[in-house]
Amino acid sequence: MPIVVTGIDRTAAEIVAGYAGVGVATVHEAQGRKGLLASHMRPIYRPAHIAGPAVTCEVAPGDNWMIHVAVEQCRAGDILVVTPTSPCEDGYFGDLLATSLMSRGVRGLVIDAGVRDAATLTEMGFPVWSRAVYSQGTVKETIANVNRPIVCAGAYVRPGDLIVADDDGVVVVARADAAAILKKSHEREAREEGVRARLAAGELGLDIYGMRDKLAAKGLRYVERDPEV
Amino acid sequence: MPIVVTGIDRTAAEIVAGYAGVGVATVHEAQGRKGLLASHMRPIYRPAHIAGPAVTCEVAPGDNWMIHVAVEQCRAGDILVVTPTSPCEDGYFGDLLATSLMSRGVRGLVIDAGVRDAATLTEMGFPVWSRAVYSQGTVKETIANVNRPIVCAGAYVRPGDLIVADDDGVVVVARADAAAILKKSHEREAREEGVRARLAAGELGLDIYGMRDKLAAKGLRYVERDPEV
Amino acid sequence: MPIVVTGIDRTAAEIVAGYAGVGVATVHEAQGRKGLLASHMRPIYRPAHIAGPAVTCEVAPGDNWMIHVAVEQCRAGDILVVTPTSPCEDGYFGDLLATSLMSRGVRGLVIDAGVRDAATLTEMGFPVWSRAVYSQGTVKETIANVNRPIVCAGAYVRPGDLIVADDDGVVVVARADAAAILKKSHEREAREEGVRARLAAGELGLDIYGMRDKLAAKGLRYVERDPEV
Amino acid sequence: MPIVVTGIDRTAAEIVAGYAGVGVATVHEAQGRKGLLASHMRPIYRPAHIAGPAVTCEVAPGDNWMIHVAVEQCRAGDILVVTPTSPCEDGYFGDLLATSLMSRGVRGLVIDAGVRDAATLTEMGFPVWSRAVYSQGTVKETIANVNRPIVCAGAYVRPGDLIVADDDGVVVVARADAAAILKKSHEREAREEGVRARLAAGELGLDIYGMRDKLAAKGLRYVERDPEV
Amino acid sequence: MPIVVTGIDRTAAEIVAGYAGVGVATVHEAQGRKGLLASHMRPIYRPAHIAGPAVTCEVAPGDNWMIHVAVEQCRAGDILVVTPTSPCEDGYFGDLLATSLMSRGVRGLVIDAGVRDAATLTEMGFPVWSRAVYSQGTVKETIANVNRPIVCAGAYVRPGDLIVADDDGVVVVARADAAAILKKSHEREAREEGVRARLAAGELGLDIYGMRDKLAAKGLRYVERDPEV
Amino acid sequence: MPIVVTGIDRTAAEIVAGYAGVGVATVHEAQGRKGLLASHMRPIYRPAHIAGPAVTCEVAPGDNWMIHVAVEQCRAGDILVVTPTSPCEDGYFGDLLATSLMSRGVRGLVIDAGVRDAATLTEMGFPVWSRAVYSQGTVKETIANVNRPIVCAGAYVRPGDLIVADDDGVVVVARADAAAILKKSHEREAREEGVRARLAAGELGLDIYGMRDKLAAKGLRYVERDPEV
Repeated sequence: MPIVVTGIDRTAAEIVAGYAGVGVATVHEAQGRKGLLASHMRPIYRPAHIAGPAVTCEVAPGDNWMIHVAVEQCRAGDILVVTPTSPCEDGYFGDLLATSLMSRGVRGLVIDAGVRDAATLTEMGFPVWSRAVYSQGTVKETIANVNRPIVCAGAYVRPGDLIVADDDGVVVVARADAAAILKKSHEREAREEGVRARLAAGELGLDIYGMRDKLAAKGLRYVERDPEV
Repeated sequence: MPIVVTGIDRTAAEIVAGYAGVGVATVHEAQGRKGLLASHMRPIYRPAHIAGPAVTCEVAPGDNWMIHVAVEQCRAGDILVVTPTSPCEDGYFGDLLATSLMSRGVRGLVIDAGVRDAATLTEMGFPVWSRAVYSQGTVKETIANVNRPIVCAGAYVRPGDLIVADDDGVVVVARADAAAILKKSHEREAREEGVRARLAAGELGLDIYGMRDKLAAKGLRYVERDPEV
Repeated sequence: MPIVVTGIDRTAAEIVAGYAGVGVATVHEAQGRKGLLASHMRPIYRPAHIAGPAVTCEVAPGDNWMIHVAVEQCRAGDILVVTPTSPCEDGYFGDLLATSLMSRGVRGLVIDAGVRDAATLTEMGFPVWSRAVYSQGTVKETIANVNRPIVCAGAYVRPGDLIVADDDGVVVVARADAAAILKKSHEREAREEGVRARLAAGELGLDIYGMRDKLAAKGLRYVERDPEV
Repeated sequence: MPIVVTGIDRTAAEIVAGYAGVGVATVHEAQGRKGLLASHMRPIYRPAHIAGPAVTCEVAPGDNWMIHVAVEQCRAGDILVVTPTSPCEDGYFGDLLATSLMSRGVRGLVIDAGVRDAATLTEMGFPVWSRAVYSQGTVKETIANVNRPIVCAGAYVRPGDLIVADDDGVVVVARADAAAILKKSHEREAREEGVRARLAAGELGLDIYGMRDKLAAKGLRYVERDPEV
Repeated sequence: MPIVVTGIDRTAAEIVAGYAGVGVATVHEAQGRKGLLASHMRPIYRPAHIAGPAVTCEVAPGDNWMIHVAVEQCRAGDILVVTPTSPCEDGYFGDLLATSLMSRGVRGLVIDAGVRDAATLTEMGFPVWSRAVYSQGTVKETIANVNRPIVCAGAYVRPGDLIVADDDGVVVVARADAAAILKKSHEREAREEGVRARLAAGELGLDIYGMRDKLAAKGLRYVERDPEV
Repeated sequence: MPIVVTGIDRTAAEIVAGYAGVGVATVHEAQGRKGLLASHMRPIYRPAHIAGPAVTCEVAPGDNWMIHVAVEQCRAGDILVVTPTSPCEDGYFGDLLATSLMSRGVRGLVIDAGVRDAATLTEMGFPVWSRAVYSQGTVKETIANVNRPIVCAGAYVRPGDLIVADDDGVVVVARADAAAILKKSHEREAREEGVRARLAAGELGLDIYGMRDKLAAKGLRYVERDPEV
């Protein structure tokens, strides 16, 4: 039988705070190129950037009942992460649920399904990453788990894990790794800053990264004219 | 042989006027969760909101001839609804046809195919909901019906039926139901207004809607810790 | 073995200059309705319009090494056109590569794959047409061709061919045809200008284009009432 | 509120009997190229061919309750046609429901969703056309209409309309037209038989259909060598 | 850095043996409707049925190197489960790898990507469930994990978990649950056997399951004629 | 204006003959992993294998007129390759056109669109690789090129190029390369035969290909137990 887990351990707020302004691509790289949700998870408006611990929620297809249950489990700073138990693009979430989440200080919604009231959510400034914008209404008949591990858009998410979402999509970081990955993210940003300056000045990645010898060793040849054209 | 029906009965203008500002999701709910066009029908710019009676138009794949025929059947306040007779994403419609429709007071286009001149249509403020933005040109060789019932993006649309379209997509309301659904839409909005205020104040949907007993009856249990983690 | 062709012939700059403000749909029509890339090639921000000669680049799935090689082959005014050797939506390109291309005066990127750093690319004003926005990182292990003919999103593109891209998508024009197609594009625009004015004044396409007889000859009939409703 | 219509008018059995062996493509052509369900509707085994009047059934996403209701409305010779009220590929139907339908003499199932027990259904010889084969279980919570007009896979189907399904897909014929379309189908088959013999003997469609002049009038030219290669 | 875990705990062989002939749909239901891989995972030939413990394998897009590593970790009775680290449909696997796995007694392959040599695999009787059949070759450059938990086609799979695959698709059962789910699967089969006999005899699900009152309570009404037609 | 090129140079029959029994995957590898058509190109029945020179044909969306023109250009041993000028899945081809092609000795059809009469084509033994099976009828109004270079399903095909198609899909080989690639294909098959025998005997690819050192150099580690589980 489904359960609601009430006492989850969240990524610490001070760690979350450090992720302000750190992009999804950076976090994904910093943790070894894992944790990305599928590319169909798009923000309903841009630009948008949020970070926070996940409250996880399963929902039956065409049934948003458990989102109401999950709302109660959300605290200020959380991100609600919802996945249907089979693929569905119905409009599970709209401006009323967003009002409820905003009143609790929730930072945003990640849902591998549809949402509605996109114009109002945009005006409210409540960010959502979803598979679709679709008005189709849902019922309230079937229970499912809240705050248990889920697979959302191809990524494994445990309650309390860190979610970062921006214009590029959504990434999850294991709670235990969040501090270390933040450090690595900042290191990566620092490294990239130096490279960016050199590239802006006209230096080539081929030279900065020392790629020419390796390319030649692989057999790449430069020719003035295409021999087959 | 295809026909053009010239004497369709339109949803009355005073009823249409009432739909100003009423969202697609609200209308869809008010009429019992039906009438939505598929989620791939997206506006080419946002925000956008229109309501009006449908002029319906079939087109052959890659052939926009009948849109020219349908334009003549459109009056001020109408919405042109176009469906290909087999799936096609070609660019059936661009700024010239939009100019023609705007000169007649037509409110917008709903087409389960592609459109082009998206930048110009956006500048003109002529709203379009389509399956794709795609420049592919079309021919003028094959005739088809205008103002006969069609299936557009999965929804059955009769000429004169009410179309409402906004950032969430497109919904159709049978002409005979348009007045009653408007009333129900306003009632729904009123009810939601009250709920919204309570949610904004921090009350939970679980309590407002009295869900707790029903959830318990279904077997939902709350636990402090996940027994399997 | 893969090669990099260094001495490609580019569409002449003075011809390219003429394409400023000429839309993709117009160019596509002017050259006989060919050369369009598939409709999934969408700009990461709107509005956007660029024209320039193609530098072509193949990349292995999940491997962006050759983009670094291609950057060196790009000159001011060029457009980089990238295609994976099998379908892939990984994030091959981000703000560092964009910085490098901008420092060289490159006008934009067309890639039948994913890109990342969409928010930063938007701020930088570096236009990109892509299949996806997706952060997934790539490796640098496999070499491939630069400046050889490629198929990108269904269109055959030779290095130096003219690329035009705007809100409607992307079109390619053979280098040898670029001057003639520019002339035809301008002629088409001129013709459309006249039609636009007449349509805005309320004239119908049916009359402007003289369609009524041809429609009747095909058998189209006008009836006051639908006989089957 | 949803209803079950018990007294539908079915396409007459003697007309249905005439459709034995008449292919979907022939029927579709005979009725003027309309009535096809979308190409994603595929048979779970091949070859298969059925014809019969439709019993129509709506189901909520992830909820197969109404199929049980619809079974009771099915008579010998019928075809059950099921459509979800929003897109869903769950496994609504398996060998138990097939056993029930077979015991009533039902000829097959057409469902714009998923089915399961594909191997058993194949052994049983119960033909199904579906969007997916997928085991995902469904609930029994939400009521919907039986024997009201529906849109299934893009086609409008009224209860009692004639359904024909084979390896090519599914087509619907309005009950009132079934006799006339059968006649036209047979005429078309007869015509095609003569053409087939001539084609088999080596005559060309270009000559049989007299296309050469029309092609030339359109401007088609024959050249020995491609001028651009 | 990626690792290969050599000492995984497998679902016991005597439990696996019990799953012979137990269908995916039954197992999925018996464990509470979870564990299904996505519906795009289709067998390359039908019928096919296998059960066995998972050896899990990550692969980079377009890179099948780790499959060679995973082969060594496979024992008789195992099922190899492969997932790309980003979506890819390349042909990671063909008859040579199948020969190697067959020589080790491996029962089949589950891969959320493409395979090739489909005709030969069919002749060999080596069953494969995949996303695509596609010849595209792969490189051997990037390492990844073997026998660590993965997400494959939307399902979370740990090494040693039980995989069952048949014509309906693929389901995973946690190793710790495999014995209990087998018992429940057999119980379900027994229950269904009784129902099947009653349905075959003409009894209705409506009566066997006692649905009539609940339907009426929900408001379902039976009418002789559709009031709106 | 469109043209029909009548004097194309075909891959020599004796070279084509050598490709009998050579699989698509082998050919694709032998020519450096290029030339594959997209994975959506599937045979309508299996097993099937053909090889022959391409007669190329463009068709407008929903218009199969030019296939009739192309038939006349086909000789014994040819393969007809058809691509729509914009994406379309209509049923361009059925048993009558197949009868015509068979009477001319044509080996099969490759079409990036739909076909119909799948059951009859299967009985006739006329192999087809297509994007869809779909009955939708087509018109005969728009002319296009025959025997000019085309892009079909993402691959560039020139008239006379060698096409090989089997259960794995379709590959194209440039006419000028066909003899050399045949030789490389046979060499590859010979090499694989030796490897196959060793794999069947239980040797590992890791050892046969000498991968262990390279894997270790990349940093792959073997551990008895997963440190994170």
